[in-house]
Amino acid sequence: MKLQAIIDFIQESEPSAADQAQAYIDTLTKPPGSLGRLETIAVQLASMTGYIKPNVSPPGVLVIAADHGIAEEGVSAFPQSVTAQMVYNFLNGGAAINVFAKQIGAKFEIVDVGVNAFIESEQLRSFKVKQGTHNFAKEPAMTRNEALQSIEVGMTCAKDMLDQGVKCLILGEMGIGNTTTSSAMLACLCQASIASIVGLGTGISPDQQLKKQQIIEKAVAARNPDRNDPLDILSKVGGLEIGAMAGAMLYAASQRIPILLDGFICTTAALLAARLAPNAVHYMLAGHLSEEPGHAVALQCLGLEPIVKLQLRLGEGSGAAAAYPIVQLAAAMVNEMATFASAGISNQA
Amino acid sequence: MKLQAIIDFIQESEPSAADQAQAYIDTLTKPPGSLGRLETIAVQLASMTGYIKPNVSPPGVLVIAADHGIAEEGVSAFPQSVTAQMVYNFLNGGAAINVFAKQIGAKFEIVDVGVNAFIESEQLRSFKVKQGTHNFAKEPAMTRNEALQSIEVGMTCAKDMLDQGVKCLILGEMGIGNTTTSSAMLACLCQASIASIVGLGTGISPDQQLKKQQIIEKAVAARNPDRNDPLDILSKVGGLEIGAMAGAMLYAASQRIPILLDGFICTTAALLAARLAPNAVHYMLAGHLSEEPGHAVALQCLGLEPIVKLQLRLGEGSGAAAAYPIVQLAAAMVNEMATFASAGISNQA
Repeated sequence: MKLQAIIDFIQESEPSAADQAQAYIDTLTKPPGSLGRLETIAVQLASMTGYIKPNVSPPGVLVIAADHGIAEEGVSAFPQSVTAQMVYNFLNGGAAINVFAKQIGAKFEIVDVGVNAFIESEQLRSFKVKQGTHNFAKEPAMTRNEALQSIEVGMTCAKDMLDQGVKCLILGEMGIGNTTTSSAMLACLCQASIASIVGLGTGISPDQQLKKQQIIEKAVAARNPDRNDPLDILSKVGGLEIGAMAGAMLYAASQRIPILLDGFICTTAALLAARLAPNAVHYMLAGHLSEEPGHAVALQCLGLEPIVKLQLRLGEGSGAAAAYPIVQLAAAMVNEMATFASAGISNQA
Repeated sequence: MKLQAIIDFIQESEPSAADQAQAYIDTLTKPPGSLGRLETIAVQLASMTGYIKPNVSPPGVLVIAADHGIAEEGVSAFPQSVTAQMVYNFLNGGAAINVFAKQIGAKFEIVDVGVNAFIESEQLRSFKVKQGTHNFAKEPAMTRNEALQSIEVGMTCAKDMLDQGVKCLILGEMGIGNTTTSSAMLACLCQASIASIVGLGTGISPDQQLKKQQIIEKAVAARNPDRNDPLDILSKVGGLEIGAMAGAMLYAASQRIPILLDGFICTTAALLAARLAPNAVHYMLAGHLSEEPGHAVALQCLGLEPIVKLQLRLGEGSGAAAAYPIVQLAAAMVNEMATFASAGISNQA
């Protein structure tokens, strides 16, 4: 699958469907506007899908894993080997996202796009572009061609999910060091200061946080990617799973399938997708607001409001999965509620 | 069932179970604290139920309907006849709470504790205490004995739900005029000013809002209930469904079953329950924050933080149902995630 063909295929969303959806929602047996954000979401789903009575079930959760050379700078609370260990945990069903995906009845797949270990499992989708990125403090994370390949892996995996009937796509990730990578990418993608972005990741100390900030500032200055070229940003300071997540989103957008965003890393990938194809943002809903400060920055760049705020900072797609039942309720509201006319109820005093 | 017997049976929650739950959650395969509010909820569920691995499924939704004499003052955007019409809508499955209860897999029952109409249906649980309250702008809403009866109806209905295996109780309501009643009750229960409580209800104008405020102020002054006697407040300015909701909560608390609160009316009932039995509050979670300003006042009185904020103002139990999947995820997290030891994962750098 070729990136440019998919980008060209992504349409604007449909404002007329949104208007029709709002008018229909106002006939349902409840005071107008009284279902607040659920009504807004239902209207957005209509403009995304073109259906006034949209369907978001089943959801699909695609967890994409890769390693980051920058981890050798000591930017994470966990060693690089944890990426592969967590992939085994996903395969064995023990991680948070396994539990959450099961709760929401999701189709679920794990993709290896660049873990720095050989992982043997029939359940794993292996599309390894390389054994993790290079340390972008010292050299470009990957070549431009590898960056492109990572995006195409995501497109392929999203296509497979959608072919299974998935109606709402959730992207999760695993990659020790990937808040560092995302911070560097986000600073380049939306001209934000590193200081406003870098948080405590999975649990570093304030001292380590300052060190992490300095490492990223120096690395971004040294790699100096072209801010107007999203692929240059991805290849010089990016991550393979972030490229793949962006590719998966582009494919979903091209098929008018709603994308429910997770936290900081996922939203950075969303911003990358939106820089490659501005229309892609019309197919995105922000699931939650994470504790990682860069997440609010990335959401603001995209102009998206999170659905829930639960002080999460795990990733894996967990926050999006936690928000999914609310999106599902919004769709159920339009599909299943009675209208004032059908129920024979007075709609004013 | 007698009120005092149930009140005496409500225990304090179990702090030792909370400590054990937190310690266990810290062994799960995720950075400590990274599941934020979900971890807090799981700990609360442990102290409520006494189980470190709590079970909140299936939930039960009890929708309790009654009419309010105060409606004749023109305080609502809808006529009183809508209460009965909406009960028929609940019975036919067309209201928001029907759709939401189905989505969350809830046991579902409708109770008539005082609708001002004869409703014929085998599915309706009919425990009519009277044909709606009197207009408390002119006379006490009900007698002390009727207030007590309404509470006992709620206890009975909650018992029936719990006997069906319900592990988390959601209370919904329907009653044209019940934001007016709740405003009067809340002002008496937590010494708040009427102006800080009264909002736009189901959709009145700012002019009507001011008029509503004045009607309530005058009525509360005229009825002058004893602020230290919750039953006097309920009988003089209360509502039958609010008494029944409080009774249902007291019964659930006595059985250590978590109660997931809905919006303004439900939280006013929760405050009534907490005034009757202070330990009851240990069994309550606040589902959402509604748009009705009195809801924030009531939550603050109870010391509870809402789980979601979705700009809802419908009632019926809809906001609690929308929050339920998050409570369910919290329980699933503790029940199903792997530990670092069981998954063989390094838990530090």
